[in-house]
Amino acid sequence: MQHDYKNLTATYDVLGIGSAIVDILALVEDEFLIREALDKGGMCLIDAKRANELYESLGQCTECSGGSVANSLAAIASLGGKSAFIGRVHEDALGKIFTHDMRSVGVDYTTAPAKHGKPTARCMVCVTPDAQRTMATYIGASCELNTTDIDAQKIADSSIIYVEAYLWDLPEAKDAIRQAFAEAKKAGRKIAFTLSDSWCVDRHRADFLDFIAECVDVLFANEHEICALFETDDLELALEKITPLVDVTAVTLGERGSIVLQDQQRNDIPAQNISKLIDSTGAGDLFAAGFLYGITQGWSLYESAALGNSCAAEIIQQLGARPQRPLNKLVA
Amino acid sequence: MQHDYKNLTATYDVLGIGSAIVDILALVEDEFLIREALDKGGMCLIDAKRANELYESLGQCTECSGGSVANSLAAIASLGGKSAFIGRVHEDALGKIFTHDMRSVGVDYTTAPAKHGKPTARCMVCVTPDAQRTMATYIGASCELNTTDIDAQKIADSSIIYVEAYLWDLPEAKDAIRQAFAEAKKAGRKIAFTLSDSWCVDRHRADFLDFIAECVDVLFANEHEICALFETDDLELALEKITPLVDVTAVTLGERGSIVLQDQQRNDIPAQNISKLIDSTGAGDLFAAGFLYGITQGWSLYESAALGNSCAAEIIQQLGARPQRPLNKLVA
Repeated sequence: MQHDYKNLTATYDVLGIGSAIVDILALVEDEFLIREALDKGGMCLIDAKRANELYESLGQCTECSGGSVANSLAAIASLGGKSAFIGRVHEDALGKIFTHDMRSVGVDYTTAPAKHGKPTARCMVCVTPDAQRTMATYIGASCELNTTDIDAQKIADSSIIYVEAYLWDLPEAKDAIRQAFAEAKKAGRKIAFTLSDSWCVDRHRADFLDFIAECVDVLFANEHEICALFETDDLELALEKITPLVDVTAVTLGERGSIVLQDQQRNDIPAQNISKLIDSTGAGDLFAAGFLYGITQGWSLYESAALGNSCAAEIIQQLGARPQRPLNKLVA
Repeated sequence: MQHDYKNLTATYDVLGIGSAIVDILALVEDEFLIREALDKGGMCLIDAKRANELYESLGQCTECSGGSVANSLAAIASLGGKSAFIGRVHEDALGKIFTHDMRSVGVDYTTAPAKHGKPTARCMVCVTPDAQRTMATYIGASCELNTTDIDAQKIADSSIIYVEAYLWDLPEAKDAIRQAFAEAKKAGRKIAFTLSDSWCVDRHRADFLDFIAECVDVLFANEHEICALFETDDLELALEKITPLVDVTAVTLGERGSIVLQDQQRNDIPAQNISKLIDSTGAGDLFAAGFLYGITQGWSLYESAALGNSCAAEIIQQLGARPQRPLNKLVA
């Protein structure tokens, strides 16, 4: 399979636009999800009052920067890629933590923190004994992303612009995203998109189908999300339907690895062996990181997906979605 | 060995007085410690400027509540013990995290957060590949503990008052500690003390020897700390010297387990087997938690130390010093 995602003249391999979130992780029992009416495996948006109540009901927590595309960008930088991120925090302690964690691994992150309005976004990540994660997000300052944050020069200087479906839940951010796509297309840049969450796909299915057909070059999804997009339980049918719409589709299957499709060609890439599954948070984000790093280095789609699988294997053996150790050893 | 640390009439098994700190944990290479001139395995105090510089130089971080005695108290509550904590945070985001993490596991923690003055204490915990931790602490609001925070009723209602040697580094807190001991002695309560750190012992050796001889019933130390106390490299000699000074001494030896001494009697308790050593942060704190929980339940010193070893084994298999899963399963 041939592709042209390597761009020797670009300053950044990948520029991401997404929610700027700090995760608050807690290990919980399944009964906790039932008691708190949280859909297992999903992500729901909550208001400030509910966020405080839910936090009060959690036991011991660990704080770690998060955000789907932000996780991917941090991992791309950790792999050795050149990356930039656009997303809004508030000028508060969690905002400083998020900013540190992006810049410290080498992500170019310069979106001005908000001085007024809502605090930095936080996501309560409830990890059950099966290592599945269930998320409730107070989106706070992430909502306040606007067109002034979209740096046309940075977009023109990036091989790939990567965005998350979660952004469609933030009506205020829509103009900013639309402007980013226009800039990207004007500069002839590629667009990568992750479907984020099957409930999110349910909320925005028609918009996503239009957007994918019009703009997207590389699509990321897990099997539930790609099936939700076409309202089917049949993965093969969903794969058949997506292929003509985008150049490259990468679907993650958990312990069964991943599938990459381009035209009529398909690669099935087995998952990496792991020694201990701890927390699935960030598995999809880290797959995307490895894959995007690979294709922007000119690697084959198979090699890129294999690196994605390795990155995912690394992240599910620790708590939280930011790699505690540098990932560059995986590149060799 | 007989002891009388179980007190059926006390409201709290253990009341702790200590620094109220949020840990900022990062995995680093040994070269990082050399570059930043940090003494491996130790704890140093740093000012706000140095704390900011050091934070900037760290890569990806994870935030988790800490503080030596605070870690022990949280673990005692997690084991099912009744515990209270006195220590000062600022009214800021890290202070809220610390407060949540104490209360959420059941510690009675009501010290009023400071509204003015320095921010909540933070400790940069640098974990090297050998799982050793090296700490640099900006003590911030922890310093502002004062006599008004010492709740005489709570002290009188606790079987054991537990304090950390680190408090001796905070001159402002000294009056508060002195008052707490007076209240404890007046109420006939026991005093437990941890030597915290061998550099800390070097700074306050004479004070500690006086304090131990006059006040302490239960002493915790690791082998380096107990040797530092008597300025010797000979552990057996140090054990011989400490025995007449206190009722019970518990010394942790890392992978060689622990030793408990009372009068002429000695127990050597082997360490628990572990599957993967990740981070030694909190090993001593969790040993103390298990031991204090055991003796306040009326367990033998051997059984109590065995639980201490189990708690330590649990904490060194995760990042950070607060147990991510409840410890009560270890009690059975």
